[in-house]
Amino acid sequence: MLKFARMILASGENCPDMRYAAGFSTPDEFFYYESGDVRGVICSALEFNRARSQARPGVAVRAESEFGGPDRVTVVRNLAAELQVDCFLVPQDFPFGTAEKLRQAGITVEPFDGVFFPEREFKSDEEIRQVTISQRAGEAGCRRAFEILRETEISRDRMLYWNSQPLTSELLRSEIDIAMVKLGMLPTGTICAGGIQGSQPHNTGSGHLPADMPIVMDIFPRSATSGYWGDLTRTVVRGKASDIVKKAYDAVLAARETCKAAVCTGANPAQLHQLAVSTMEKAGFYTGRGDKGDFGFFHGLGHGVGLDIHEAPRLSPRNPEPLKGGEIVTVEPGLYYPEWGGIRLEDLVVVKENGCCCLTELEDFLEI
Amino acid sequence: MLKFARMILASGENCPDMRYAAGFSTPDEFFYYESGDVRGVICSALEFNRARSQARPGVAVRAESEFGGPDRVTVVRNLAAELQVDCFLVPQDFPFGTAEKLRQAGITVEPFDGVFFPEREFKSDEEIRQVTISQRAGEAGCRRAFEILRETEISRDRMLYWNSQPLTSELLRSEIDIAMVKLGMLPTGTICAGGIQGSQPHNTGSGHLPADMPIVMDIFPRSATSGYWGDLTRTVVRGKASDIVKKAYDAVLAARETCKAAVCTGANPAQLHQLAVSTMEKAGFYTGRGDKGDFGFFHGLGHGVGLDIHEAPRLSPRNPEPLKGGEIVTVEPGLYYPEWGGIRLEDLVVVKENGCCCLTELEDFLEI
Repeated sequence: MLKFARMILASGENCPDMRYAAGFSTPDEFFYYESGDVRGVICSALEFNRARSQARPGVAVRAESEFGGPDRVTVVRNLAAELQVDCFLVPQDFPFGTAEKLRQAGITVEPFDGVFFPEREFKSDEEIRQVTISQRAGEAGCRRAFEILRETEISRDRMLYWNSQPLTSELLRSEIDIAMVKLGMLPTGTICAGGIQGSQPHNTGSGHLPADMPIVMDIFPRSATSGYWGDLTRTVVRGKASDIVKKAYDAVLAARETCKAAVCTGANPAQLHQLAVSTMEKAGFYTGRGDKGDFGFFHGLGHGVGLDIHEAPRLSPRNPEPLKGGEIVTVEPGLYYPEWGGIRLEDLVVVKENGCCCLTELEDFLEI
Repeated sequence: MLKFARMILASGENCPDMRYAAGFSTPDEFFYYESGDVRGVICSALEFNRARSQARPGVAVRAESEFGGPDRVTVVRNLAAELQVDCFLVPQDFPFGTAEKLRQAGITVEPFDGVFFPEREFKSDEEIRQVTISQRAGEAGCRRAFEILRETEISRDRMLYWNSQPLTSELLRSEIDIAMVKLGMLPTGTICAGGIQGSQPHNTGSGHLPADMPIVMDIFPRSATSGYWGDLTRTVVRGKASDIVKKAYDAVLAARETCKAAVCTGANPAQLHQLAVSTMEKAGFYTGRGDKGDFGFFHGLGHGVGLDIHEAPRLSPRNPEPLKGGEIVTVEPGLYYPEWGGIRLEDLVVVKENGCCCLTELEDFLEI
């Protein structure tokens, strides 16, 4: 019978599987291996002390020089001999170039089909605690934005000014990010998209922010120490919202709350997504593609959050796999129209047997 | 004759090659292709508008639906037919799982051996301008740290207090990061390692900072808009440095300046590294491994900086390839001793025909 081992080659900073397995991350790539109960990392002299002090209990810390490194093929060949394995199973995103070199050296490497560590979907109490810490920091960032928006003055041409300066997406983002940095977070790509820009869900926003138009703020801090993410979105209007924006806001809020009420162990993600669609359609908001691009609700309802900002399970129309309980997922319906912008409202919940526990404590309102 | 095309599959956020080729980045993965003069990206509806507004001139923006997507194998099969290519050359870090699926579907994919875009090494005036903007932000962060350290009080047990609170690595880092966020930077992993922690070059630092011991501050901001990095390191002592620390500081500074004076088109990176080693050895600082781990100078002298924080060329003892001119590289000798900590001094320079142009404007001093 063939003997398999699991192996990862990554830095940990961009590889949540590595961080999960090894318990730490480094700026440079290193190896993780797992064969039965034997688990270890192989790293350079530069990372050896960090690895020894931060590795997860039960993970041996080995120097690449022990395996004839730094040449990777040599390291893996010697590792295979030590573990007496015939084949290494590696993640889907294992570097192709290294995989080819290993194969050319006669070492069998196969991409693992499916989720590398399925247990990552189910969060321990400690993981929920870490995500909650990041979520609170995100909320502090968003409250800072609320405060600034409240302090703005509106010019005659209905633009926002703060401390007599134009309030731009860039300035609002930097104030949100500063509030989160103070709480030990790494801010990356905070979205502050006003007016029409908000009709593109991934537009991070730029330039002078308008009054009377929705401003989408999607905030996803990662803890500098734990590596766990938070994720939240609020959409507000400084000044007076138009009737269509008010109606869309109510529809999105209703969709979010209806879906949260339906989240529980056994719930079907595709059906949850469909529930958001039908809730918003009942309010008159349909999805489609027009001359100016897509409109309506054209992204998934949510996604898992943990050591990765987007991880399994996806609450997408293409995922029929029932929730198992213990996952942390976002619930984030949205409506986007090139004519007036976008509304997205995102909460974070833990899936429980008879419902869900909401990790977001931030208030909801439209006009500010 | 076989017809080749280059292809990347990445998000751009973690893939500098993608950002370089496409001219933008997204949170999710998308395709880039290049066959002769034909260049394009293939992305989802969610990224289509962003791609259209931000793609590099000459890069076509195509929707995955045009290629029968989102299934990746289908997309690449249809792309191969359109381009009439026989083989896709992909980067070394192309995802192995996708490569295997493409091969199983009869599509030839080969990892490109060598640097995918060798031209990335040579910086245009605009790229130098962008790196300089990030570098100035890093300097602003470091000056903020100098200011805070000057404001600290030293307790009887020789620990640092700021505004009557313990000054920790975490607090100092967050103040540096805030200064950089205000300038539009994404701070990631700023190092503030005091005392013994500084003897591990990659230790980011934690806990209460001591007086009279070196504090290593390695600051590498990335611009949120351009994606270009800056990189600098200063080491200071608040209070009185010991004689050995003063001597080590002078040796590292001499090594940095000697090496900078030797950087020019045609200079050999391995010899530059050796020049740093010999300069510090002349001052009595040797490299080796002891009971407590490595000591002396045990990392490379420097590395390229651009859209990646660590990119080609490496100023390492293993790189004999002469500099060609136009590269941006760090020059960062260091000395690390488990007995007293570490000293690292890092400048950033552009390689020129008859020397180098230093992009760092930050002052050097030991005691503060």
